[in-house]
Parts: sequence; C-alpha cells; structure tokens
Amino acid sequence: MADKHVYFFSGDLAEGSKELRNLLGGKGSNLAEMAVIGIPVPPGFTITTEACVYFYRNKKYPQGMKKQVEEALAKLEKVMGRGFGDKANPLLVSVRSGARVSMPGMMDTVLNIGLNDETVGGLADSMDNPRAAWDSYRRFVQMYGDVVMDLRPESKEETDPFEAIIEEMKAEKGVEQDIDLTTEDLKELVRRFKGMIKERLGLDFPDNPSDQLWGAIDAVFSSWDNPRAIAYRQLNYIPDDWGTAVNVQAMVFGNTGEESGTGVAFTRDPATGENSFFGEYLIDAQGEDVVAGIRNPHPISDLEKEMPKIYKELDGIRHKLEEHYKDVQDVEFTFEHGKLWMLQTRAGKRTGLAAIKIAVDMVEEGLISKEQALMRLEPDQLNQLLRPIFDQEAKRKAVKEGRVVAHGLNAGPGAASGRVCFFPEEAEERAGEGEPVILVRMETSPEDIRGMSVAEGILTSRGGMTSHAALVARQMGIVCVAGCDELNIDYQERTITVNDTVIKDRDFISLDGSTGEVILGELPTQPSDVIRVLIEKDMKPEDSPTYQLFDKIMSWSDEYRRLGVFTNADQPDQSYVARMLGAEGIGLCRTEHMFFEGDRIDAVREMILADSPSGREQALAKILPMQREDFVGIFRVMEGLPVTIRTLDPPLHEFLPDDEHEIVDLAKKMGVSNEELKFKVESLAETNPMLGHRGCRLGVVYPQITAMQARAILEAACAVSKEGKEVKPEIMIPLVGIAKELELQAEVVRDVAEKVFEEQGVRLEYKIGTMIELPRAALVADQIAEVAEFFSFGTNDLTQTAFGFSRDDAGKFLAYYTSKGILRRDPFQTIDFDGVGQLMEICVQKGRGKRKDIKLGICGEHGGDPDSVKFCHRLGLDYVSCSPYRVPIARLAAAQAVLEEREQKKEEERKKEKK
Amino acid sequence: MADKHVYFFSGDLAEGSKELRNLLGGKGSNLAEMAVIGIPVPPGFTITTEACVYFYRNKKYPQGMKKQVEEALAKLEKVMGRGFGDKANPLLVSVRSGARVSMPGMMDTVLNIGLNDETVGGLADSMDNPRAAWDSYRRFVQMYGDVVMDLRPESKEETDPFEAIIEEMKAEKGVEQDIDLTTEDLKELVRRFKGMIKERLGLDFPDNPSDQLWGAIDAVFSSWDNPRAIAYRQLNYIPDDWGTAVNVQAMVFGNTGEESGTGVAFTRDPATGENSFFGEYLIDAQGEDVVAGIRNPHPISDLEKEMPKIYKELDGIRHKLEEHYKDVQDVEFTFEHGKLWMLQTRAGKRTGLAAIKIAVDMVEEGLISKEQALMRLEPDQLNQLLRPIFDQEAKRKAVKEGRVVAHGLNAGPGAASGRVCFFPEEAEERAGEGEPVILVRMETSPEDIRGMSVAEGILTSRGGMTSHAALVARQMGIVCVAGCDELNIDYQERTITVNDTVIKDRDFISLDGSTGEVILGELPTQPSDVIRVLIEKDMKPEDSPTYQLFDKIMSWSDEYRRLGVFTNADQPDQSYVARMLGAEGIGLCRTEHMFFEGDRIDAVREMILADSPSGREQALAKILPMQREDFVGIFRVMEGLPVTIRTLDPPLHEFLPDDEHEIVDLAKKMGVSNEELKFKVESLAETNPMLGHRGCRLGVVYPQITAMQARAILEAACAVSKEGKEVKPEIMIPLVGIAKELELQAEVVRDVAEKVFEEQGVRLEYKIGTMIELPRAALVADQIAEVAEFFSFGTNDLTQTAFGFSRDDAGKFLAYYTSKGILRRDPFQTIDFDGVGQLMEICVQKGRGKRKDIKLGICGEHGGDPDSVKFCHRLGLDYVSCSPYRVPIARLAAAQAVLEEREQKKEEERKKEKK
Repeated sequence: MADKHVYFFSGDLAEGSKELRNLLGGKGSNLAEMAVIGIPVPPGFTITTEACVYFYRNKKYPQGMKKQVEEALAKLEKVMGRGFGDKANPLLVSVRSGARVSMPGMMDTVLNIGLNDETVGGLADSMDNPRAAWDSYRRFVQMYGDVVMDLRPESKEETDPFEAIIEEMKAEKGVEQDIDLTTEDLKELVRRFKGMIKERLGLDFPDNPSDQLWGAIDAVFSSWDNPRAIAYRQLNYIPDDWGTAVNVQAMVFGNTGEESGTGVAFTRDPATGENSFFGEYLIDAQGEDVVAGIRNPHPISDLEKEMPKIYKELDGIRHKLEEHYKDVQDVEFTFEHGKLWMLQTRAGKRTGLAAIKIAVDMVEEGLISKEQALMRLEPDQLNQLLRPIFDQEAKRKAVKEGRVVAHGLNAGPGAASGRVCFFPEEAEERAGEGEPVILVRMETSPEDIRGMSVAEGILTSRGGMTSHAALVARQMGIVCVAGCDELNIDYQERTITVNDTVIKDRDFISLDGSTGEVILGELPTQPSDVIRVLIEKDMKPEDSPTYQLFDKIMSWSDEYRRLGVFTNADQPDQSYVARMLGAEGIGLCRTEHMFFEGDRIDAVREMILADSPSGREQALAKILPMQREDFVGIFRVMEGLPVTIRTLDPPLHEFLPDDEHEIVDLAKKMGVSNEELKFKVESLAETNPMLGHRGCRLGVVYPQITAMQARAILEAACAVSKEGKEVKPEIMIPLVGIAKELELQAEVVRDVAEKVFEEQGVRLEYKIGTMIELPRAALVADQIAEVAEFFSFGTNDLTQTAFGFSRDDAGKFLAYYTSKGILRRDPFQTIDFDGVGQLMEICVQKGRGKRKDIKLGICGEHGGDPDSVKFCHRLGLDYVSCSPYRVPIARLAAAQAVLEEREQKKEEERKKEKK
Repeated sequence: MADKHVYFFSGDLAEGSKELRNLLGGKGSNLAEMAVIGIPVPPGFTITTEACVYFYRNKKYPQGMKKQVEEALAKLEKVMGRGFGDKANPLLVSVRSGARVSMPGMMDTVLNIGLNDETVGGLADSMDNPRAAWDSYRRFVQMYGDVVMDLRPESKEETDPFEAIIEEMKAEKGVEQDIDLTTEDLKELVRRFKGMIKERLGLDFPDNPSDQLWGAIDAVFSSWDNPRAIAYRQLNYIPDDWGTAVNVQAMVFGNTGEESGTGVAFTRDPATGENSFFGEYLIDAQGEDVVAGIRNPHPISDLEKEMPKIYKELDGIRHKLEEHYKDVQDVEFTFEHGKLWMLQTRAGKRTGLAAIKIAVDMVEEGLISKEQALMRLEPDQLNQLLRPIFDQEAKRKAVKEGRVVAHGLNAGPGAASGRVCFFPEEAEERAGEGEPVILVRMETSPEDIRGMSVAEGILTSRGGMTSHAALVARQMGIVCVAGCDELNIDYQERTITVNDTVIKDRDFISLDGSTGEVILGELPTQPSDVIRVLIEKDMKPEDSPTYQLFDKIMSWSDEYRRLGVFTNADQPDQSYVARMLGAEGIGLCRTEHMFFEGDRIDAVREMILADSPSGREQALAKILPMQREDFVGIFRVMEGLPVTIRTLDPPLHEFLPDDEHEIVDLAKKMGVSNEELKFKVESLAETNPMLGHRGCRLGVVYPQITAMQARAILEAACAVSKEGKEVKPEIMIPLVGIAKELELQAEVVRDVAEKVFEEQGVRLEYKIGTMIELPRAALVADQIAEVAEFFSFGTNDLTQTAFGFSRDDAGKFLAYYTSKGILRRDPFQTIDFDGVGQLMEICVQKGRGKRKDIKLGICGEHGGDPDSVKFCHRLGLDYVSCSPYRVPIARLAAAQAVLEEREQKKEEERKKEKK
C-alpha cells in the first residue's frame, strides 16, 4: 500500500494536528488544529512535505499521491456540495505552500483554481455578483500566468505585463481605480490576458480545472527552490531538504461586496507587545491585497464599529487561539457575506521589545512558565532594548526646524540615520563598503531581502504594519517606517519628493521607527532606557517599564544559567558598561590597543627599532608607567572580579608606518636614516602576518616585552589592592602552540611577580593561562595544562587556522560559500561545531584530564553568539566572554542552554520509557 | 643505602658491561666490556649519567657519590700499586666524558691528574724519563687551566695564551719544535703557566691531587651544557636530559720515548668500507695529538713494519672486537714501553658508501643478518651514492690546465664546488643566502659545527683522516679534503697561498673528496654510478660495484617494506628518474608549474582577467591542449602505475605581475588599460595568501578551471590508453576543508569524464580524492571520505595551519625555537608527531571508519624524511610520496619501519613473558 501523502480537514474533524508540523508544514498542521478545536476553516487537504522532498529527489510524485489527491478532492466536493469544474455550482480551491517554519511570502500561492469561461457563470450565480466572479477570474488568470506559467517582465525596466494591460484598459476607459472597471471590462481583461499568454509563451491557458490544479501543485513544489526562498533559508538557517507542504483549500471570497472582506491580525501588538487586538482589514478584497500593501487597509478597531458581529467572533477566536497555542498568533481571515473563516494561524513575529513584553506578561497571566518564557525569546532580540534612540534634544531641534518631512507607520522601532539608497543590490554593495544605508522603496518584496538585511533602516511609501517590509524589519530588528504615502518615490531620477522637498540618492535621512517620523539629515542618537538606567544613571528603574522587562528577563536568566558571562574590554569605561550589563569578569583585555594611544606609539616604535636588549628595555621602561595606569583603572572598575589580561599579540610591523611620508617623519623623530628605517620596516614585513612572528612568539624571542607587561599588570594590581580593593589578575599568553612556549613565558611572569611583590610588600593571588587559538594547542592541551591554570578559546584564530581561512581575505569566497550552502553558516559568526568545535572538545578533555580544576572559557567573538554560547555550555566551559553590549544576550543564551539540556534529558527519558 | 653511582673495571673483571650503555655512557660501558672479554684496558671507574643528571637538577652530587668515588680510587691505587699523590710512586688518572651516544670532541677531557711539583719527580723516576714527566706536567697544567679553570683567549684575535707562552719560550731558546725544548725549559713553562693563571684568574693552581680530581669531574659534568655540546645535540636530536658519564682511568703514557706511542684506528676503512685495517699513530705522543691533527701521523701499515709485535696484538684485537660487537669499531690505543693498552672502542662513523659496503660485506661474511644490515644504515646515507661527481671531461681539462693546485687527504668523498669562506659563522650566513660555500680552515674544532654543516665542502690544511674535520664531514655526508699542508691559510688577509697561487675569499674552488684534489674554479659535476646505471644508462650494472651495493640494499629493503613509495614529479623526465629509482607511482603531480611555461602564462592571465565565465572558458580552451600534452608525457612514462594529479592550487595573483613595468607590458598585451589591470591585480592581492582564495576554493568558485584540467587529464589518459598503455589517473582536489567542496568538485570532474569517455569512445578507471592539509579536513575526514576515494596528507600546509606558522615568515623565530630547544626538530623537516601527527591519526581513523578501502598516502616533503616515513608506516598509510632522489631513502626507511615494529613486538613479548 502506498504511504499516506494527503491529509484531509473539515469542520471539527481533521486527519492532521499541530503535532504533525514537520509533515504538514506550519500552515497545514495549524489549519487541521483549528478545525479540531472548532474554529471555522474552509475545508481542504494538505499534501505532505515528504511528498515534496520525494518530488525533488525523483522529479516525479511519490506512488499513490495522485490518487490520494483525487480522493481528497472528491471528499471536498462532497463536503462543500459543489463540483470541481461544475458549471452550475463550481468548487474553487486555493493552493498554498506551507513549510515547517513560516517563510512569509517566499513561496507561491494560487487562488481561484477551477475557474474557466464556463464555471465563471456558476460562480457569478452563487455569489450573486457577476462582477466579483469576473474579478476573481481576472485575478486567477493573472496569478496563474505569473506563478504557474512563469510569465514575468522580460527585463527589469518592464513593468508587470498584466498590470500594463490593466493600466491600458483603465486609460481606454478613462477610469482611475481597478474598482471602476465594469464586468464587461473584466471580461475583456481576461481575454487580453489569455491572448498575451498565448502570444508570449505560445501556450493556451489551461481551461481544465484538473490541469489547473496540478499545474499549481507543481508550481508550489517548485517554489521551494526559487531564489528568494533559498536566500531566506540561508538567512534563517533552514535546511534545504525540509521541503514544503501544499495546502489545497476550498475558496472563500472576501471580494463579494460590502458584506465581505479580508484581513490579517495579531492577537497582541507585535511592535510593543501590548495585550491589545492588532490588525488590519479591507472590505471587498482578497487576502493578497492586505499583505501586498497595494491598498492601505483599516485598523482592526474600525471593524468593531462597522461589523460588530464579525468583530466579536474574531475576538473570541483570538482568545481561544492564544489559550490554545500559549503564544501570540498571527492570523488571516476572510468573511464572505458575513460568514467568518480563518485561513491561517501561526506564531506571530514580533519585535524584541514585544517578544520580551509578551513573554513576561504571559508568565504573569499564568499562561506560560518562566522557563517557557525564556525559551521563547531570541537572545539577539535583547539587542533592541539596548540600541540607541535619537538624542532627544537634537530630535526636538529637528522638529522645530521642520525637518520632520513625513509620517509613516512605526513598523520597526528604534532610531536610524543613513544615506538614501533606492535599490537593494546597491544597498548591499554600499553597506559592504561601510556606508550607513537607508533603503527607500515604494514597497518591498521577498527578493529584496538581502538588501534589507544590511540597511540601517527601511522606508516604504506603501503597505501597512503587516506589509512585507514591516514584518521583515521587525524580525531582523531593523528600524522601519512603512506606508509613508506622502512620499513620491522616483526610481528613475533617484529622488524622493515630499511636498516641496526633494531628497536625493545618498542624502542623509533619519527614521524614528518608534514614532514613524521621517527626518531630513543625520541625527545623533541617544542611549536606550536600559542604558540610561544602568549606565548613564539619569533614569530611575521604576520610571522605565522597558527596563523592568529587561531586568526581569535577566534575573530569570541568571536563575537558570550555569555558564559565567565575562566581557572583552580594554578600557575602564568599557569595563564599567559591561559590569553594569552583568559581566562577571573580564575574559579578554587586549593590551595592544593601549600601545597606540597618544605618544605611546613613539616609545613602542623606539622599542621595536632598538638593536639590543638593553635598548629595548629602555624604551619599554617608558611604556611601563602608562600601561600600569591603564590597568589601575580597569582593576578599580572590576573590583572583586577576575580580569584576564592578554600580553602583546600583533606582529611588531603593525606598529610601524608603511606609508613613505610617515616613514620619513618617523625617521626624523627617531634620529635614524630613512634607509635604515625603511630597511627595518621591510625586514619586519611578512608574507602571511596572521601566521608570522606574533603572539607569544614575540614574548619568547623578546622576553623583555612580557616582563614589562607583567610588571605593569602586577604593579597596578598591588596599587589597587593597597586601596583596599580586591584584585584578581589573570595573565593570558596568546598564540601558544607548544607547551614550552608557555613554560618560558610563565617563568618570565613569575620572576617579575616575585620581584614586584617584594618591592611592593604585597602578595597577591594571580593566575597564568593561555589562549587556545591554534589547532596544535588544542591537540596538545594536556602538555600545555601542565603549566596553564586556565584556557581561553580564541575561536577567531582557531577558526582561521582550522579552516585555513584568513578572515581578511576569505570575504570573497566565504560569501559565495554561504550563498551556495557549502557552508551553512559563516564560521566566524557561529562556531563551526564539526571542525573547530571538535578541536575544542579534544582540548577540554585533554586539559581537564591533566588539570582537573583548570578554568575554561572562550573570548573569541563567538562568545556573544547565542548558538555558540549554547555550544560552550554543552562543552562544559566555565564561562563565555563577549563584547559589553552582548553580555545580556549571552546571559539569556546561557540560561536557554540549561533549559534545552533539561528538555533533551526529558526527551531521552521519554524515549527510554517507551522502550 | 645510597644508590650505586660508581662502577669499577680492571683486568677481566668489571662491574659494568656494554648493556649498561645508558647508565655508563658509551665509553664507560665499552671499557667495562673490553675488560670482560680480556682486552687490556687501563683500570678505572665510571661515574654514572644518572649522577650527572642529578648534579644538573640539584646543583650538587647525589648522596653517597663522593664516598663511592673515594672507595673506587682506593681500589684503583691498590690494583695499580701506586698512590694518588704519592711522591715516590704516583698514580695519575685521566677524567673523560662519555655520553650514551658518541659526541666526539664535544665535551671535556683532562689527562695526567695527580701531578704536582712533588709527584712529578716520582713520575720521572717511574718513567725513567724526566723530560717526559715534565712534558706531562706541562700538558696537565695547560689542559687543566683551559678546561677546568676556564682560562681561554680573551678575544677572538688572541691566540691561546698557553700556546703564546710556548712560542715565546721557543723563540727565547731559538728552537722550532716543542720537542726541542729541554726538561729545564719545560719546568720553566710550568712555572710561567701557573704564573699566568694566578695573574689572570687570581687563583692558585691546585696542587692537591684530590682537588684536581674533583675539579675535573665537575668540569666534565658541566661540559654537557657547553654551547658546542648543545649545538651537537640539536643537530643530532639527542635529548638534553641524558647527561654524560665520567670515566676516571689510570693514565698510561704514549710519550715516554721511542718504545711508546698512541693512535686511533678503524677496523675497516671508514671512507670506502674496504675490509682493511685503517688508522694512524704517532710515536712518543699522547692521544690528543693524533685527533687534534697538530702533528701529521703515520698510517697504521707503517706500524706493522716498525713494531710488528704491537701491530700483531692490535690486529688480533681488531678482529676480536668486530666479532664481539658485530660492527666496525673505532678504537684508541696507547703503547707504553711496548705494552699495548686500549683506551676506547666505539662503533666507527663512516661514509654512506662505507656504511653500505660494510653492511653488505658483513652479511656475506655471516657476521650479521640482512635485517641487522638494514637497521644499521641511516637512510640518508644513500644520498651519498646518488650525489653527483665531477664531470670527468671537465676534470681532465682542469688537470691539464694545471688547476689542481694541491692534494690533501680524501677524507669525505664526493664532488663539491663553491666559494671560499674562512669563518664558520660567515659560512652559515652566506649559505643562508644561497651561496655555495667551501669552508677553508687550518683545522676545525667542535665549535665550528654549524658552519660545517651548511658547507658544500670542507678543506683543512692540518690533521689526518681521523681529524675532527674528517670525522664530522663523513658523518654528515659532506665533501672533505683534510690535512692539505701545502696550503698557507691567512685568516687576517683572507687568502690561501699555495706555491704561487693566491686564492681569495669568495673565489670559486672545487674539492674532489674521493681523491683529495683541490681545484681552482668551478667544475661541472656528473652523475654518480647509480644514476649512470639507472638513469643515464651509459654504464653497465656489472661495471659498478657501488651500483651493486645500492641494488642489494634496495632489493633487501623491498623484501621487507609494506609501505608503497611514490614520487612527487611534475614532468616526464622527473617521473622517469623517480621510476628508475623505484617509485611505484606519482603521489603528487602539481599542475601549476605547467601554467608558467612559455606562452602559457599569457593564456592563464587572460583567463584570470576575464570578466565572465565565457571569457574564462575561451582562455582556458587555449591552455587545454598544452596541459593535455604534459599529461600524455607523464602517463607514458608511468605506464601501469597510478598518477595522482592535483588540480590548480596557488592563488591566482601568483600568476599576475606585481611590478609596475610588467603591469604596463601586460596591459598592452591584453589590450586593457593600465588602471584596469592594476585594479585587478590589487583586487586579487591578499593579506595572508596562504589562507586565501586558493586550492579547491578556486575550483569551487570557478568550476571552469577544474573542468578544463579534468578534461586535459582524461583526454591525455584516453590518448595514452589508445596506444595500448595502461593508465591509472587519480585526480586530487587540494585544500579541501569542507566535504561539500569536494562533492562539488567531484561532480565537475565526473561530468567532464562522462563527456570525454563518450567523445573518445574509451572508458577508463579513475579515482577522485583529496589532499588533507587543513586541520578541519582531518577532523571531518569521515564526511570527506563519503566522496574521496583517497586521501593524501599535505603535511607542509597541515604543519603551517596546525602550528599557525607561515613557512615564509617563521624562519626568524623557528631558528630561535630549535636553537633554544622549544622545538626539538624543525616541524617542516620531520612530522610533528604530537600535534600534526595526532591530526593524521584522527584522519586515518575517521577516513577508514567511513570508507574501509580508502587509499591513504602522504605527499608533503615529509614523505622523504626517514623518521616521518616510519611514522607513516606506524599510522598504517598505504604509501609515501617524495622527490625522485629521495625515493631510495624512503624505500630503506620503509623497510626499517617494518623491522623496528617487529623488534618492538618482540620486546613487548619479552616483557610479557617476564611478567
């Protein structure tokens, strides 16, 4: 017997349920679920994702699928009391994609399947509205021609050929709006559409409903691999082999007059998280009209007044869904002649702020547990609570000066300033060059996704709060002002005209995504509430609900997490910010930054150019007091917490000029000849500086440098200790690959320490450890652990050496690699578990095997990446260290790691019990 | 009770034996062994290496050692019937170092201990030769002052201060030779020596024999860590923590007149391996005189005539020792008033040729087994049979022209041409810059060892066949002409004067180490016998005894080895050489070399500069036929054997000019503007090219390149196959780090293969595999093995990435690292077993775990390093691949690997049985 490929749903009976999400896709499983819990959904059936995968692998349908679809269709005809292709009483269906996870707008949909010159009459009769029937037919031919028959503009310049015909017709008839076209006009449009299809493609438009249905099913299957779907999957780490389900559903019509309509809604406000019904609808329209942002819809609150019965029913469903799903739902609905149908429900995308507010509220409402609340958040969403807003003074000034030129919808909160850019591809390019870009579009579409993701802000002139631009921006945490219809955007001329103002390509503008304001020029930004409460201390906690949410999430996270969260900070002010955001120590303090400050670079250069150890020591003696002062500041801020300081890491040539003029200047300053200096610069140059004379290799060959740094650190530690503050210095030797390197460097440090303690009359605890940033270091970690009291994974360099990728050079092919799925993720962003992660695992085993209580951490940039943090938890590290503003993110990710682990254990136990 | 630190030996009784080598050192254990087998050795005792190690660690003697030495000394007095410090009948002793393995001349020796103003009289009486007694006293003070009291020249310019006093005395007395100084003169010398010591060091010379003894013991212990000993250990991979034993032995005197003498000898000729007694002696001299090369000694054959009784006894001992030790022995002997004493025996250092001849002869004599013969050879010694000799025509011409200006001893066979250099430090420097250097010295000493090791040849004006220069040169396989006393070497002026000819610093000279000739100018060299028989084929095997030895060792090696030996060759001629030397396939054929030939580079550049895939394909089409021809030649030569061809590896910028002028030229040629070309060159430049866009990353982004190369390879394979020759192409994708990379490249190759086979009407077996040269590749070898049919370790790059060392840049600190013992060996020479080796092991396990029959090899330069070959055997690889001339070396090393493994198994079984 063939496998089951088709699942039917109707009334409160359904073969599927929300548990079958992987098989039926999000949309399909939720339609089944809604049917089960008694929410009105138009009946239909779902073809499984497995059938799609089979279709991809074998270029044909799996055995039995065709028959099962036919049977389900027959059942649907019976339930609906209509016939597919029946002239008098035609059944129309929609065909929609639906993957495991929502990929909004990425794949294809075809509505009104089953219409032809004969059935349209039956539809007109059953609707009692010939115009609506012909409008549906017109839409169907247009959509089918586009999606299934692939009739698209032939060049970038050409507008949509169907739209062109409509415009032509409107011009002929002298009308402005689609709605002003008569039934006869629509009939003519259908004729012209079909003619154009025949002319352009040499194909007849299929009149047979069955052919139409299979064409649409094929098109949905195929849309899984269209370029925008692929791009979306890459951005969201969705595997290519999941496939999409296909939902075939009886059509209901929102376009049958004033008693009909369609809308989308969120059960709570997705921008702020407020527990209020939020959505938009259009009367006498089909679903696509709302999402596409072509007509500006009404807020859902209007519905309460205009159609109180429908509104009440909808509001009831809203609560029922939230209670059932324990989460905010994003729904689509249609009402046809006053009868409400739910077309879709799914977890609603929301801003970081909303996500947090909803999670906290739901815990307080008793709807979900703290654990569920934490697990539901994306740690990166916290970013949005930390991001700056406009400087209020400057904003006020801009308002006074009349620089607020337009108001749109506050679709993506936050503040952004940047230069106008009209084209997504160009935005990508310019952002790549470091330009802050504001992407300005009439409306956005899924193919724009890459350009959107790199923009500081997005501004559209069309569409509502649930338009494509708004959804994507909120999800990505990008500032967005949408539907700003005062703007007149001219792509050709590259201008925005608003009243008398003309904004040109590359002009600076600013967007306030929280108010919807569009402001001329660049505006300085100011810290968010959280930052003001914690860092600036110019706001009281009780005055900021946002801060309170933040605080709640953080304290819940800290209840669960096992991992310590440290920070990478080189200066007292950075250290302070990090500590206020919850850092429990400094995991990486780079000392080389200190070498560049002010006049220090002169002494550093003198040291490098010295010919003898004694010359070197003289120059180092000049640097010593300055370094000491840096450390004093940091130790004070980090009182009582460990401070891990890395000795000099970059190759010496980084401190020398390479430009002709600078060399001449420096030579004069140093009192050496140009030739001599140039020779020195050249002799220090390296073919592969990443693999050259740097890290501890410097300290090994020039122990004086390490000695000076150790002295500066320990003298500072003694000084702060004498102030009565507890100091916990940890000295970290970089780029160790051979145990002996660390041994020699540790000797230097210990010798200095003894001297300093004697001189200062203070004795302090301190640790000596190393970074693990070379494959060999991980492999011989047992040897290194003989000396090292701690390891800190330098996953940036470890990734470079494990892959043989130079971060400086890999850009070219790495982008290609992720775009082609050769690498699923950029290994510089998230730890490569298979390779780099394996090295880390070997290292942890060997290191702990030799020294049971060795302290293990990570200070590569991965330390602030949630998935990498979770990996570090699973590895059993003691802490992660990340940049100050990522500390809260790491705290939450660390808590999630614990909860995920528990969940997995439970899962395993369940499995065991089953056996 | 204290441990035993002192081992006594005397007559045919000894507490030690040759089995205690690690504890007693080579010299000590062999003295004991000789005593046991009834060979006359002066009695004495050995302080253990463990005592030395303890002394180093604790800066004091181990408990009980002092007492045990005193007891042994008492026993020695009793055996000798003399008293240490006894005025009438004084016992004198020598104190010599002796490590586990011979480190000739590296550590210190003190003779004649026990002499003072009182005992010298007793010695004179017992010798019946006052002059000899005072000569011994004078030597003692001089040696003790130098070695123990550390009185050395104060600057490089100063000559030895003791020698200066002797010269002064000779001048005062108007004599030429030391021997012409009278007893009274010698007394005065002793006085002056002591005076100078007092003056320079402020110390009295110790008169107490016990103080003298302990001073000498300390000095020998300390000499383990003198700079030349450290340098020697590094060159020979001797661990620093072995320590040296100290041998205290009753003195016998070769300097008591015409009936006395001293000498050194080899039981066979160490230069040629001939089974004839070989050695030198001096009448009326002490041992150091022969080795130091200060007086030119007589050949041992003269002894047969002059002192037949001594000679006969010595010859008897020669045979007894060879039979006992089953190896050539290098002995020191002294005869005192006609009584023969053996002072030392050890395995004799020999040239590669001699080592091979001796090993083969001893097998044929039934003295040792084939296995023993193979194990006794250093694979690198084979090098000497392969190295070129002078072009015979050019040599004859040089002879005719009178350019042979001097004859010395043929101390190190082979032919060398190079530029004269007088100072070892300078030789190191100049050789480092690529200059061929002939090191010219009056005599060499152990501190010259680094300069010697980098020279093409060594020429000395003093010393014999067993002088320091000769010993070291033979061991290292360096050409050497020694004791060429016609040469007048002036270090100051940097000239060699020989008759009327003046040779200046940096002039070219040539040395024939097989004949001892010194020739003016540069001489072309010609292939060795082995090369002439196998490659040039202008010599019959039966005409060359050398070839026959080579052939025997090779065929024995092949009997035992399991590892295949492949070669790295890019051209037909190289492939031919390798095949003749025994290569069983090509393990690495680099294709990029082919890209540089002739006009090809133009097409390659055109390809790089192409803006579109089609432009790229056009340029590639030009390269295709040329590449195909290269492969045709190689496939023909390698008929029936696998040929592994690597696709393009270097980054594209390596093919572009970087020089301004060249860019202008190229721009003209390519018909693009200078700016455009410069932009392209700059855009391709990389910060770390080693980690950049190279290897398969090129082929992945530009699949057209791989497709062209695959086509060239497979078309060539089809063509040669049509000639009736068997071809076995294996296509190797470089720098894979991600399984998907290989997957994509394999797809490209397979697509091309199908097309080519169809076009050509031929179907061939071929393999697709990858290099493992990135840590990640080794770690995810299971994933890669899903596609790869073979792995070849690219240990050069694997070492670079595992260590994070750029080979181009690491020179600076790597030399420091090996000199300081941070790394015991250069990891680019011998595989780093701990780190890189561990990666290889992981890779082998994972690769075979996924694909049981995966073929595993190595094609990094380590494939020709004997220790690395053995490591590869232990890892279970299928083959090693090395440069053509190293193929024989790898064959022997592979055989040794099997024998070592067997030996180890036996050892383990023995241990088991013991339990």
